[in-house]
Amino acid sequence: MQLKPIKITQLIKSLVATAAVLSVCIGCATAQPTASDPLPSWNDGSAKQAIVSFVEKTTKPGSPDFVPPPERIATFDQDGTLWVEHPMYSQVMYILESVPALVKAKPELAKVAPFSTVLEILQGDRAAIAKLTMPDLEKLAAATLTGMPVDTFQAEVKKWLTEAKDPRWKKSYTELTYLPMQEVLTYLRASGFKTYIVTGGGQDFVRVYSEATYGIPPEQVIGTAGSTTYGYTKEGKPFLSKEPKIVLNDNNAGKPEAIHLMIGRRPVAAFGNSPGDQQMLEYTKAGSGTRLAMLVMHDDAKREYAYGPAQGLPDTKVGTFTQALYDQAGKQGWTVISMKNDWKRIFAFE
Amino acid sequence: MQLKPIKITQLIKSLVATAAVLSVCIGCATAQPTASDPLPSWNDGSAKQAIVSFVEKTTKPGSPDFVPPPERIATFDQDGTLWVEHPMYSQVMYILESVPALVKAKPELAKVAPFSTVLEILQGDRAAIAKLTMPDLEKLAAATLTGMPVDTFQAEVKKWLTEAKDPRWKKSYTELTYLPMQEVLTYLRASGFKTYIVTGGGQDFVRVYSEATYGIPPEQVIGTAGSTTYGYTKEGKPFLSKEPKIVLNDNNAGKPEAIHLMIGRRPVAAFGNSPGDQQMLEYTKAGSGTRLAMLVMHDDAKREYAYGPAQGLPDTKVGTFTQALYDQAGKQGWTVISMKNDWKRIFAFE
Repeated sequence: MQLKPIKITQLIKSLVATAAVLSVCIGCATAQPTASDPLPSWNDGSAKQAIVSFVEKTTKPGSPDFVPPPERIATFDQDGTLWVEHPMYSQVMYILESVPALVKAKPELAKVAPFSTVLEILQGDRAAIAKLTMPDLEKLAAATLTGMPVDTFQAEVKKWLTEAKDPRWKKSYTELTYLPMQEVLTYLRASGFKTYIVTGGGQDFVRVYSEATYGIPPEQVIGTAGSTTYGYTKEGKPFLSKEPKIVLNDNNAGKPEAIHLMIGRRPVAAFGNSPGDQQMLEYTKAGSGTRLAMLVMHDDAKREYAYGPAQGLPDTKVGTFTQALYDQAGKQGWTVISMKNDWKRIFAFE
Repeated sequence: MQLKPIKITQLIKSLVATAAVLSVCIGCATAQPTASDPLPSWNDGSAKQAIVSFVEKTTKPGSPDFVPPPERIATFDQDGTLWVEHPMYSQVMYILESVPALVKAKPELAKVAPFSTVLEILQGDRAAIAKLTMPDLEKLAAATLTGMPVDTFQAEVKKWLTEAKDPRWKKSYTELTYLPMQEVLTYLRASGFKTYIVTGGGQDFVRVYSEATYGIPPEQVIGTAGSTTYGYTKEGKPFLSKEPKIVLNDNNAGKPEAIHLMIGRRPVAAFGNSPGDQQMLEYTKAGSGTRLAMLVMHDDAKREYAYGPAQGLPDTKVGTFTQALYDQAGKQGWTVISMKNDWKRIFAFE
């Protein structure tokens, strides 16, 4: 009963789901570009140069690579690209931590797997997480979310985010965004680009904090999305409630398909970090003119994490940067960002 | 074998589908609000007053009804709300007029219904349109669109729009937008609102001309949408092609559901004209604070059309403004716009 990385990733990202906004902008306030250097947390090198050169070429009037402002679309994967995804996606933690309230309401679930397994994990047996299979997680998400009004979901996620802490840094998850990537978001927006998150994560989940955390409004968050059902309260007030059926599976080929559905334009720049982002980068790069495709490589065990088989790094369970992906980057002209070498600072709180 | 209005509406709007932009802005250039009167094509009356009062209340700092700019979302149905929908949706005409090219490629279809029926219609037998059933139209759309690369579809729709003419005014369909509604779009945008089209029509179809025609970019067009499939050409170039499977049916309850999926915020203002818009208006109006919900009533047989049973107008096959809908407007505090009485001019070309 091993945790299956990619599938669980896709599933989990598929299960959580809406829009509200936290009140504090964590990283974006500290990531203002200056006239002299729009990317102060980046070391000089090919990655930084690729970004600056791309922006200059696409925004300079008269440049052969000029892109008219309405077509300046940049898409960013979230987990492992904009914020930390280890040791487990925050959305998985949200689902697991929603289980005690469910068990309180239905005590008979306490002795039934997978609910009993989750209780073990939350009581400190972190290794028990490996017992959870994809159908288990599907069951957990369905049990905790089905029928929930979307407004309630938003309020609950918002509350959870103010309380939950990452186990290593003891910080809120929304504080664990990468400062250099916040600078890229700010730099692109200041250059007339519309920035989108295109995540395998739950669209409704990410929309709760995207505006406060990244300066990206909910309508510019594309993610794995479940359907909702329109209905009425007893008093006749209309509301939307969450359903377990998936409408968008925003991973792999699902990313360009979702970009077409939600934006209707091909991005000019795209950023990712795992095989789930490959098709988005291919699709972006296949457009005419100058395009920017970048992959964040997690090779900094000291300041963050090192994972994935590329360059001899150990493979892990989430967000694997595979050798095949690394090879694709070389073949297709994508720029690999080394966290270790390209980033001067990783977090705003450092 | 009667044409079934609502179902066919939904189907047709479900079948057509992508994003490119025409080069001329038809109505929006003439619809600039002035400081003295943002709605010069409107007669003074309760409808005009409702719009102006709503904008003033929601945008005046310190007003109890003030809406922060990021939350200023306004949604507009298209057919019958922003442009003419009679005698037949332009998208149905697009599908019908795509049939000859298909028959040329596959001559054996010329004698097979529904293709043969379409050829009769196009040869002048307009009444034959009544023979077409919902499954027929489904078959026609699937036959003409399935497997088509989305880029090809965009180019074909763009070309078709430059050639096709409305039978009554002998104008391009994109010239048949309502000037007073263009003024509302412009006025709301100038007041910090983000304007969206939320149409039962094909999302990919409307996105081709939305920016040039309404000043609304493709990413702010929500419509009935088919799925696409990501694949590669023989040369390895990635592309998206159209599939006959419907992802979003953007009618009735599908409108608020799609708004949640695509925007993630509840609109503050919504405009429609038919029972397919009822849930969008309800959902909008159910939010807290001041909300604006409006229905365009087609009661001007001389300058446009009069249809729907409300106020004794004859019922017709498309965009029916029913008595039930009219009654809802009264109960729920929606404002009915009388084309005859509220609009000084209907088209920019008048």
